[in-house]
Amino acid sequence: MLRRGFQLVKGLGQITGQKFSTGRNGITIRPLLSTGTQWDTGSPFQTIRPLTMSPWPFSTQPRDYSLPNASWSEEMKRLYDHYNALCEVEVEGGGKRKGPWRRLPSYNRTIKYATGGRCLSKVLQAKARLFTRNIEEQGAGFEYVVFSNKQEKRCVCVFQAGHLLEGPPGHVHGGAIATIIDSVTGTLASYLSGPVMTANLSINYRSPIPLGSVVLVHSSLERTEGRKTFVTCQVTSADGSKLHTEATGLFVSINVGHLFGA
Amino acid sequence: MLRRGFQLVKGLGQITGQKFSTGRNGITIRPLLSTGTQWDTGSPFQTIRPLTMSPWPFSTQPRDYSLPNASWSEEMKRLYDHYNALCEVEVEGGGKRKGPWRRLPSYNRTIKYATGGRCLSKVLQAKARLFTRNIEEQGAGFEYVVFSNKQEKRCVCVFQAGHLLEGPPGHVHGGAIATIIDSVTGTLASYLSGPVMTANLSINYRSPIPLGSVVLVHSSLERTEGRKTFVTCQVTSADGSKLHTEATGLFVSINVGHLFGA
Repeated sequence: MLRRGFQLVKGLGQITGQKFSTGRNGITIRPLLSTGTQWDTGSPFQTIRPLTMSPWPFSTQPRDYSLPNASWSEEMKRLYDHYNALCEVEVEGGGKRKGPWRRLPSYNRTIKYATGGRCLSKVLQAKARLFTRNIEEQGAGFEYVVFSNKQEKRCVCVFQAGHLLEGPPGHVHGGAIATIIDSVTGTLASYLSGPVMTANLSINYRSPIPLGSVVLVHSSLERTEGRKTFVTCQVTSADGSKLHTEATGLFVSINVGHLFGA
Repeated sequence: MLRRGFQLVKGLGQITGQKFSTGRNGITIRPLLSTGTQWDTGSPFQTIRPLTMSPWPFSTQPRDYSLPNASWSEEMKRLYDHYNALCEVEVEGGGKRKGPWRRLPSYNRTIKYATGGRCLSKVLQAKARLFTRNIEEQGAGFEYVVFSNKQEKRCVCVFQAGHLLEGPPGHVHGGAIATIIDSVTGTLASYLSGPVMTANLSINYRSPIPLGSVVLVHSSLERTEGRKTFVTCQVTSADGSKLHTEATGLFVSINVGHLFGA
């Protein structure tokens, strides 16, 4: 059900600025305190602006975790620059326009929604952080940035695994690998199909990932069948020569009202 | 390949106190600084004593994360007490003997091993922490304890999900669920079959897990076929009435020498 929140957000992203209703429920969307004019949506990649019914009252900007920081290795920065350059293309006369790729911002906060918030105490709500962005020390946990290509129906994530993600001695924990795969495949599914929930993740571990190394997480649309979106994923070495992990994800479309428990 | 390190440990656990060799390699096992007479083995559940060839030079004891702390809810403590009571059974005359269940200690450090350590800088080696135990703040991340029953070939994990494990607003991240499943199923496989590596994890998400709640992670042996160990897993509400997640794990046996890259 991972995509429940992700797609809540996706649904909100789709309706940003529009009058919003989910049927019986009178929904009010309130971002948590101390987040900014953009805040994390549950997805590390999607953002929503404050709804017109709930103008954003704070002036501070949240940190975008997808931007380079001092902990990034040369390889991480090189790959970031490579895909970032594809987000713009030059046009005649020296100008630039949007390219086929897009860098997806990433934050560490979520929003309180009408029904989901009920299961959290006020204290928990204030302290809650996105699992993949819950460590403030730069370089210690998940350092990653995702680029999407809607035309080619795929995403590429550049991922540097920090020292707090250890499983086998000197290597990345299988759960941490599953986590980044879950994030990237789910984001692609919601990016292409709108609100969805994760139904299944199947992960084949081929070769361990050394701690501190940089890998690429490629995710592509396999097919859609009615409400089902099938996505594939491969985790490879930075140069693409070594396959570390393969996975498939099945996501089921839901309606936004359902996301709110309407 | 998650079990690579886990089974290194399992292999060490099996040979603790015995003269140790992995063939061509002259293996020396050195725990990292500031760990204790027991240290984390890569598995959150298994421990090894210092090998006779490498007497433990430190007096400090590491923290056993599987013991109750102030962040545990009443439900978490109640479930811990329930299974802990099954670790001993009364005998005639009022004495006690070991019961069918065993609480498995859990630490946040790993050990440096002969070849795996090569991929880590000294700095990374010193700072590396087990992914499921990498947050010092009690109650913020994974709070869990695993009990094993060798006779029934199963494990039960009592898991309280902290506020830093959020995915969908108010609910646990699918990657965090995959992580605890990976840890529990892999531990059972290695507990029963010795050194193994994870080959596949397939996870079906049925119902989201509210952040801050306590769930049970049940793992049982399905069958073994030659070098393959098939394990099943169910994540349920604390009272067992609600199924949150189902999973299967396939693990492949390897030899300890392979774990050391011999």
